Amino acid sequence: MTLRTIVGVGGLALLTAACTGPGDPLPSWNDGPTKQSITDFVDRVTDPASPDFVPAPARIAVFDNDGTLWAEQPLYFQLLFALDRVRALADERPEWRGRQPFQAILDDDRDALSQLSLHDVLQVVMATHAGMTTDEFAGIVDSWLATARHPRFDQPFTRMAYQPMLELLDYLRASGFKTFIVSGGGIDFMRVLTEEVYGIPPEQVIGSMGQTAFELRDEGPVLVKQPGLDFVDDKEGKPVGIHRFIGRRPIAAFGNSDGDLQMLQYTAAGEGPSLLVLVHHDDAEREWAYDRQSSIGHLDAALDEARERGWTVISMKDDWRRVFAFEQ
Amino acid sequence: MTLRTIVGVGGLALLTAACTGPGDPLPSWNDGPTKQSITDFVDRVTDPASPDFVPAPARIAVFDNDGTLWAEQPLYFQLLFALDRVRALADERPEWRGRQPFQAILDDDRDALSQLSLHDVLQVVMATHAGMTTDEFAGIVDSWLATARHPRFDQPFTRMAYQPMLELLDYLRASGFKTFIVSGGGIDFMRVLTEEVYGIPPEQVIGSMGQTAFELRDEGPVLVKQPGLDFVDDKEGKPVGIHRFIGRRPIAAFGNSDGDLQMLQYTAAGEGPSLLVLVHHDDAEREWAYDRQSSIGHLDAALDEARERGWTVISMKDDWRRVFAFEQ
Repeated sequence: MTLRTIVGVGGLALLTAACTGPGDPLPSWNDGPTKQSITDFVDRVTDPASPDFVPAPARIAVFDNDGTLWAEQPLYFQLLFALDRVRALADERPEWRGRQPFQAILDDDRDALSQLSLHDVLQVVMATHAGMTTDEFAGIVDSWLATARHPRFDQPFTRMAYQPMLELLDYLRASGFKTFIVSGGGIDFMRVLTEEVYGIPPEQVIGSMGQTAFELRDEGPVLVKQPGLDFVDDKEGKPVGIHRFIGRRPIAAFGNSDGDLQMLQYTAAGEGPSLLVLVHHDDAEREWAYDRQSSIGHLDAALDEARERGWTVISMKDDWRRVFAFEQ
Repeated sequence: MTLRTIVGVGGLALLTAACTGPGDPLPSWNDGPTKQSITDFVDRVTDPASPDFVPAPARIAVFDNDGTLWAEQPLYFQLLFALDRVRALADERPEWRGRQPFQAILDDDRDALSQLSLHDVLQVVMATHAGMTTDEFAGIVDSWLATARHPRFDQPFTRMAYQPMLELLDYLRASGFKTFIVSGGGIDFMRVLTEEVYGIPPEQVIGSMGQTAFELRDEGPVLVKQPGLDFVDDKEGKPVGIHRFIGRRPIAAFGNSDGDLQMLQYTAAGEGPSLLVLVHHDDAEREWAYDRQSSIGHLDAALDEARERGWTVISMKDDWRRVFAFEQ
């Protein structure tokens, strides 16, 4: 089964836009200063007569993934995937028994799991996939996405993308922007789903990555995933990853946690106009409410800096008419 | 001065195409089996009725740079740049005296210099640029390109691009391909010139890279080049770099040396149709003639494998009507 058969989110976004008239490219956003700050920025940089005009090739927009484009509770979805892999492989890997964080996973100790750092998560992911070819790994992720369901919403994880952000991605691309994901999540995991869910091709996805090795096997050349972690695309790593993969400074950056702060600072420091946006999770009813006290999606210094510098802070509760496409 | 003011190669290519009629997108190529193998492949993968049809997003074409898109003799152009930098900085860096390869550079020992490995070259480049911000580095490369001239042809280095390959890049893009550079050269060096010279934006350039560090300075956040080498995009590194940056397998790959062999093997091993091409330097009069005995652009195992497997081998002498745009 391919992702297209179970997702079709891009199509839904288009359909929604068509039903609410041609005047509003962001129908799932409530009118107000938040939405206005985004459309004003796009108008300014795309109008050739504006002093803030930016030529299309330089219209680079970067998006964090977990908590910004799709949900990240109760645990990062890639961690839920890795937990399923640890359980599936536990019999073959007796050395995991008694070793953390593997024992916590086998015990389903949610408290311990929610305290894992991104680095811990990536270590688990690496451990479960070392020795596999990159093609084998993509196949396993694809199968998991086709069958696993979110514990609270009972939806495939690919449908846990935020409808307003899908509309925003479409709107920016229609305005000549090139959209990139810059996420702490694993690059090989995300690339299986980003084209179908977000319309973002693999070459525009930047993430944390393990080492891979080229091997000439009997069946031909393959790339084999190694246990070592090569790059963590979080905090200071995000501007470094942007420079490495994109090679120029974005003019718009979207995040939701302190892990995105340096990416926003780096984007803000460009010479021309820039748009800096934080998604603030303040809607416990339709999604979750968390920020300064949360380990997942910890948002503290970035929220202070956003308010101090006048960056756009999205209130999910007030600014989004709808959170998920499956709501209605 | 920007590159556009001194280059204009893309414009020239278009002009040439316009003068030779709409029927031939590759006017600087002589008719024959080499040219035919390329146009046949493009016809097959772009015709929706063909069994070999490939949807546009998967039409990924990768090109080595040195010796494939532009010349690489008498030394890699980036090495010539680095030599100029070593000479310019020698007074401030007395510790370089007596240390190789720096002393060979200061002595202008061409024999020794032509024996440097890509790794040696990259070490020199790193040593001369550590501590500089990425923006400062780009400025220095830009200035050098605006003034330095090729020792044999007395042309700016940006005009040392091969006219037939510029036409090929345009032709592939017009056929829905996305064109990437995958080169052993330094990524920050190449990205200064690839958009103007080849029409390839920085985010489609993969190369060797040093480490960079994010720093919050008084004037704002910057990325600072570090002395350490992070990734060598050569040999086995090329498929690894392709997986890391592009995340899917190319269907066309172009190289000119044994450093490109693994990239061609990896591309050839894809499930669908693929085009594998080597540029063979056999034209001492208009360019240079070298292959198995040469340290720069060493072509030996890849030439044997290309002949054995029926890959396309371009004879610069026979297949190219014109090598450089400035020839006429």
